[in-house]
Amino acid sequence: MKLLEQKILSCGKVYPGNILKVDSFINHQIDIGLLAELSKEVYSLFQNNKITKILTIESGGIALASLVAQQFAVPLVYAKKVRAANMVDTLYSASVTSYTHNKTYEIVVSKEFVSEDDCVLLVDDFLANGCALRGLVNIVNQANATVVGAAIAIEKGFQDGGAKLRAEGLHIESLAILESMTDDGKIIFRS
Amino acid sequence: MKLLEQKILSCGKVYPGNILKVDSFINHQIDIGLLAELSKEVYSLFQNNKITKILTIESGGIALASLVAQQFAVPLVYAKKVRAANMVDTLYSASVTSYTHNKTYEIVVSKEFVSEDDCVLLVDDFLANGCALRGLVNIVNQANATVVGAAIAIEKGFQDGGAKLRAEGLHIESLAILESMTDDGKIIFRS
Repeated sequence: MKLLEQKILSCGKVYPGNILKVDSFINHQIDIGLLAELSKEVYSLFQNNKITKILTIESGGIALASLVAQQFAVPLVYAKKVRAANMVDTLYSASVTSYTHNKTYEIVVSKEFVSEDDCVLLVDDFLANGCALRGLVNIVNQANATVVGAAIAIEKGFQDGGAKLRAEGLHIESLAILESMTDDGKIIFRS
Repeated sequence: MKLLEQKILSCGKVYPGNILKVDSFINHQIDIGLLAELSKEVYSLFQNNKITKILTIESGGIALASLVAQQFAVPLVYAKKVRAANMVDTLYSASVTSYTHNKTYEIVVSKEFVSEDDCVLLVDDFLANGCALRGLVNIVNQANATVVGAAIAIEKGFQDGGAKLRAEGLHIESLAILESMTDDGKIIFRS
């Protein structure tokens, strides 16, 4: 999506180690007009699917997922990050390893909020190693609900999370895919 | 606001110790249609004020704040919770004590995202002892920006956070104010 690519080029900051900071418009300060456009694009990409719920992870995904949920007029659920999952009788949980922060945490979703009748669209701000997305898929599967697909703002195409998950059959739509980033700040998008 | 009060009565759950769980529609699963109505109400309450930025705290406030930011067509910033604030040269930080979780944490906001020209509307899902809101006010003050006021979904009127902050001159608009809750689940709203 050109609008997002242009915003990344003008406002994103590249740091050594393939770190792209977009915290001036996506995940600390949020350009709500941009996110509204992204949410409309997500709607157009999945509007022919039956979707009953949006699922994301706190905190980076919540703003975009809120606007996407508004587009589809369905509830939003966000998985919570916890240090250790207890109360396993009332919660679905999955382990997620963060590439950026190099640590593993648990995500949990109350069993009340995903049921087997649900057709779930996953939404997140980033896709890199795919661990967070895999955790969400895992939770939807535990609920015997249906994963419709995943809508991602920015995918790091040079990491293999997206390729592996697509090979496993997950329908992923990323609004911008980074083909490569160099330490001196050059960004190439996948066309 | 009648719509929110009715939702609290029909879907909120009261637990001993003055705990009100609204995680089926505000802060785990989110009724996005309800939040859209709340955001319009917030807009109507503050539309005559100059507002350049919405400020909230992860994660509970982000969904409502996103929709409020959309109403005002201004950027949203969310303060991040961290265990210990370092990098003090680039961040504003404040200490917050959570009533619900009985622990103290730091909130941080990058200095890039609040400047002295900003007129900031604070948004959060809950107001109880007022510590979170006070932390946000503190951060806006550090930036020499202007606090326009605070929009809260649910205020626990039987705790003194709101009363004290109003006495100090903060313009707070709470969409539902709980006058009292009993352990057997009875909720009375302030009229």
